[in-house]
Amino acid sequence: MSTPVCERLLVIGLGLIGGSLALAARRAGVAREVLAISRSSQTIRLGVEHGLIDAGDTEYDAVLSRLQAGDVIVVSTPTLTVPAVFEAVKAAVARGVILTDAASVKGSVIAAAQTVFGELPATFVPGHPIAGSEKSGVMAAMPELYRKRRVILTPTAASSEHAIATVRHLWQAVGAEVVEMPADLHDELLAATSHLPHVLAYALVDELAGKSTQEDIFRFAAGGFRDFTRIAASDPQMWHDIVLANRDALLQEMDRYSAHLQQLRDAIAHEDSEAILGVFSRAKAARDHFAAIFKEPDSPEK
Amino acid sequence: MSTPVCERLLVIGLGLIGGSLALAARRAGVAREVLAISRSSQTIRLGVEHGLIDAGDTEYDAVLSRLQAGDVIVVSTPTLTVPAVFEAVKAAVARGVILTDAASVKGSVIAAAQTVFGELPATFVPGHPIAGSEKSGVMAAMPELYRKRRVILTPTAASSEHAIATVRHLWQAVGAEVVEMPADLHDELLAATSHLPHVLAYALVDELAGKSTQEDIFRFAAGGFRDFTRIAASDPQMWHDIVLANRDALLQEMDRYSAHLQQLRDAIAHEDSEAILGVFSRAKAARDHFAAIFKEPDSPEK
Repeated sequence: MSTPVCERLLVIGLGLIGGSLALAARRAGVAREVLAISRSSQTIRLGVEHGLIDAGDTEYDAVLSRLQAGDVIVVSTPTLTVPAVFEAVKAAVARGVILTDAASVKGSVIAAAQTVFGELPATFVPGHPIAGSEKSGVMAAMPELYRKRRVILTPTAASSEHAIATVRHLWQAVGAEVVEMPADLHDELLAATSHLPHVLAYALVDELAGKSTQEDIFRFAAGGFRDFTRIAASDPQMWHDIVLANRDALLQEMDRYSAHLQQLRDAIAHEDSEAILGVFSRAKAARDHFAAIFKEPDSPEK
Repeated sequence: MSTPVCERLLVIGLGLIGGSLALAARRAGVAREVLAISRSSQTIRLGVEHGLIDAGDTEYDAVLSRLQAGDVIVVSTPTLTVPAVFEAVKAAVARGVILTDAASVKGSVIAAAQTVFGELPATFVPGHPIAGSEKSGVMAAMPELYRKRRVILTPTAASSEHAIATVRHLWQAVGAEVVEMPADLHDELLAATSHLPHVLAYALVDELAGKSTQEDIFRFAAGGFRDFTRIAASDPQMWHDIVLANRDALLQEMDRYSAHLQQLRDAIAHEDSEAILGVFSRAKAARDHFAAIFKEPDSPEK
């Protein structure tokens, strides 16, 4: 058990991300009470039954009224609903409740905070846990989801040291390594390593599914295809929100990638062995380097 | 132990594919003797030491002189070296030795056979085991590599029933499920489900490795990136050979994919939620279907 980071931790949105944080936080003793708000009363019921939360509600008022300065709200709803959630918690933030989030895009969340709060609150610390799964929903919650995973915080110029430290301790208590960087660098990095691969995989599976040979195609696909396309099983609505929230950075990455792919296509068309081997060899060296630095959690990622 | 399929099985090229077949065939008692030819005397030595083969050589003549009608040669060298190997085994094939291969592209192998042998031999049965790993070399050999995996045979009009049955039994004896289809359908299917994903992954990792933020990019990449890019660690020379051998079918798939990706890019640029959700949802449904029909071997794919 860690020293409690706050009296009350409120998770808004009890899906894989919020549910796993609630469960891990409860087990680690991060807060004296872990609460949740969800649109679904069944989700709250399941959250209580399975020990993810102490209590929760589908309505904001009853829960928010219990929060005091220094308590923490984590917003883990779909990216495009974040502005509406910020609106709903405005009064609590005004009285000193610390606010963070788990959205995959940080620029759009900061823009939403600017709009909703007028000026960025000192208690607002945007964040993004680099963890997930193609599974979703409260029943997918895993207490080990954040263990040895990185959480990126992108504090604003207005974020107080106390609020940053509190959010940092919250994530560290559930096993994560916390790093800080500017929001625009975060969004560029994630566009390249996460959002681009997702759209590439979605596009491939959708295209193949439209072919007349579809049954055969999937019947003869192998392990490489399985791994390459695993992320295409991710939640469509969630990824719809992410690609729109990070539209500009993603479009830049997509264009850069398409140009690079076109070069490789031309090298194959012209049987330019040196160019083909150059791409494949550099990629293998970089991927081997990544494999060496990528930290596997103790339990396999589900 | 199965009934032996032949007296002698000769594997030419003792890498992951050939080595795994030799090891599995030996354990299953497929042949009274399992032989190999490799360019490397060290590979032959390791193959004998680790029980993959009974004997082998770096020279063709001594080994080939022992083969008789009804024995089986499996060519598992890199795709573009297959014509030279066919040339080397020409005399053995002329006296009735059965010839098959494990190359990832079948059209180019059949064309090579036509050139080398003049007319396609009755004992020639092209084949392709749909199995593999990003690992390579004789030390990567796994006896379970073909268990519950599919092997596609693409017999020519000249292939005899006896030769087809022998090659079929060989693969079945090491645990594979054998199916037959025309070579051009094979090459189209594999271009879509294997060759295209490999070039997409190679292009992505190479492009990201060239960015100035490379260290950061790999540092903050997550499990989705790991799975998506695993195939970019595959052997560059092997994949160079494959993309050139299946150039026309692959270019067609690359162009189709690029056009589809461009449509998705435009949908994101115009914030066309319906189009974006359409692609993502269809892809998820198809990927979930694939997961349901994909047969995992008992031992995890390494």
